[in-house]
Amino acid sequence: MECGKITNKFLIPPFREVRGGFMKLIRYGEINKEKTGVVLDGEYFDTSAFGEDYNEQFFETDGLTRLAAFVDANKASLKPIAAGSRLGSPVARPSKIVCIGLNYADHAKETGAAIPAEPIIFMKSTTALAGPFDDIIIPKNSVKTDWEVELAVIIGKKASYVNEADAHQYIAGYALHNDVSEREFQIERGGTWDKGKGCDTFAPIGPFLATADEMTDVDNLRVWLTVNGTSMQNGTTANLIFKVPFLISYLSQFMTLLPGDVISTGTPAGVGLGFKPPIYLQPGDVVELGIDGLGTSKQTVKAYAAY
Amino acid sequence: MECGKITNKFLIPPFREVRGGFMKLIRYGEINKEKTGVVLDGEYFDTSAFGEDYNEQFFETDGLTRLAAFVDANKASLKPIAAGSRLGSPVARPSKIVCIGLNYADHAKETGAAIPAEPIIFMKSTTALAGPFDDIIIPKNSVKTDWEVELAVIIGKKASYVNEADAHQYIAGYALHNDVSEREFQIERGGTWDKGKGCDTFAPIGPFLATADEMTDVDNLRVWLTVNGTSMQNGTTANLIFKVPFLISYLSQFMTLLPGDVISTGTPAGVGLGFKPPIYLQPGDVVELGIDGLGTSKQTVKAYAAY
Repeated sequence: MECGKITNKFLIPPFREVRGGFMKLIRYGEINKEKTGVVLDGEYFDTSAFGEDYNEQFFETDGLTRLAAFVDANKASLKPIAAGSRLGSPVARPSKIVCIGLNYADHAKETGAAIPAEPIIFMKSTTALAGPFDDIIIPKNSVKTDWEVELAVIIGKKASYVNEADAHQYIAGYALHNDVSEREFQIERGGTWDKGKGCDTFAPIGPFLATADEMTDVDNLRVWLTVNGTSMQNGTTANLIFKVPFLISYLSQFMTLLPGDVISTGTPAGVGLGFKPPIYLQPGDVVELGIDGLGTSKQTVKAYAAY
Repeated sequence: MECGKITNKFLIPPFREVRGGFMKLIRYGEINKEKTGVVLDGEYFDTSAFGEDYNEQFFETDGLTRLAAFVDANKASLKPIAAGSRLGSPVARPSKIVCIGLNYADHAKETGAAIPAEPIIFMKSTTALAGPFDDIIIPKNSVKTDWEVELAVIIGKKASYVNEADAHQYIAGYALHNDVSEREFQIERGGTWDKGKGCDTFAPIGPFLATADEMTDVDNLRVWLTVNGTSMQNGTTANLIFKVPFLISYLSQFMTLLPGDVISTGTPAGVGLGFKPPIYLQPGDVVELGIDGLGTSKQTVKAYAAY
């Protein structure tokens, strides 16, 4: 994580009035006691004085616009965040984390599944939420903990029965997400995938939330992941079977999406399950991942006993 | 709903110091602005002066014990709740609603499924939470909205890797739950059951949360549901394949349960899907359900257009 002082390069690009304009939001500090901040020109600044966490109420009350105004008014006095600070998820615990399964054709193929006719959805327990550099803890009795780099969408306002053409209005921003998955729990233990998706630490999100305006072409982002430096996933959102506006519209037919909710759009080929034989995470492994415009994250894998 | 004044019959049974003792908690008033209350000797009293909602923080900070002390100290001045007040869910929106599938052998059989070797779990979007007498709204494009009376457990403290023998320590109480389900969304639209479980109004809970001490024999409760007065479900928790302590222990292997979380334990035979041909809810239908010791609830079915 890079932190530092305000430099001569200032507020690039400038804030706009719509939807908070260009902004990158972070949360940092002790787990469950995170403070808020923003990234300005690649450096991290505290915004605790704004007085609100980046949670449902924040997004619901047009917090992005208000935060942009706060940052603009106080930019000279914002304090840099100390180097080495822990980053948390850039959004506070949402009402739900909804995930899309098999949304890249190459990933569907590697798992032996058919390309879905409509989006497969499942839910991740929100207790899985973690910071982008937190450890991944292999659960007790797990032998098949796996990785999945994904583009996550953060919902900006309450969404129910939204049309695809209007879906962009409901997006607060985007973030990098590792949809960590326990394949035995998910597939071999009966019932739905939810069983292998919601273990503690299984949803590292961040480093930052980039507002929708920050992302010029969401449909053309490189999505990559390495394990111990070896490339495992190297895809592009150009290959998403179901695109973001369709997903928001689709999900909103089945449940109301709330401000701050996280929608994770699926992972490209290259997960451990897809190798022959499969490759699963072991204690000491280091996972790094990134998406164009959304930064990179890095998790070290630990056994539960060491947690 | 019965409301009224304090009577001569007073505080039966007396409060105990452990886990809040005997208590029935309610929430009432406008949707998303519910106030809190308790049931004393069958009558409903406001506890707004206690100053806390019945949410994660309340349960996490031993709120049941503190509430019992508050009620004991203020019992003479508690105000009765006006007759006709709307009841909300007795717990505020939890971090998650986790449900168990096919946990009664007769229900597994009626759906054509095998008896599960271990619990099937799925998640209900918490935006589905509703009051016990609220309308059930048939979602847009739904033709297979169905009912499921269930015993719900409310978690009292953070639970991770809990032993079955210790599981009772993690229970705040119990409530009646209608796990309303859209069968086409759940089964015929690809992916996990979550798609048909989380529509708005699909989780009416209440009328009250009964503390664990209130329930003398959770394994022997009649569980029933009628549609338009006709008996549809008439089971007993004696037939639960996986009992409550096992379920808490089991779930806590896959995700951390938080105070206030709702675990719904499955439904007995008699859901609409099980009839030949199936019977689904239509606008105007009235669903009534109940569990021994947990009261009754009643929902009227409406089409989305009338919502």
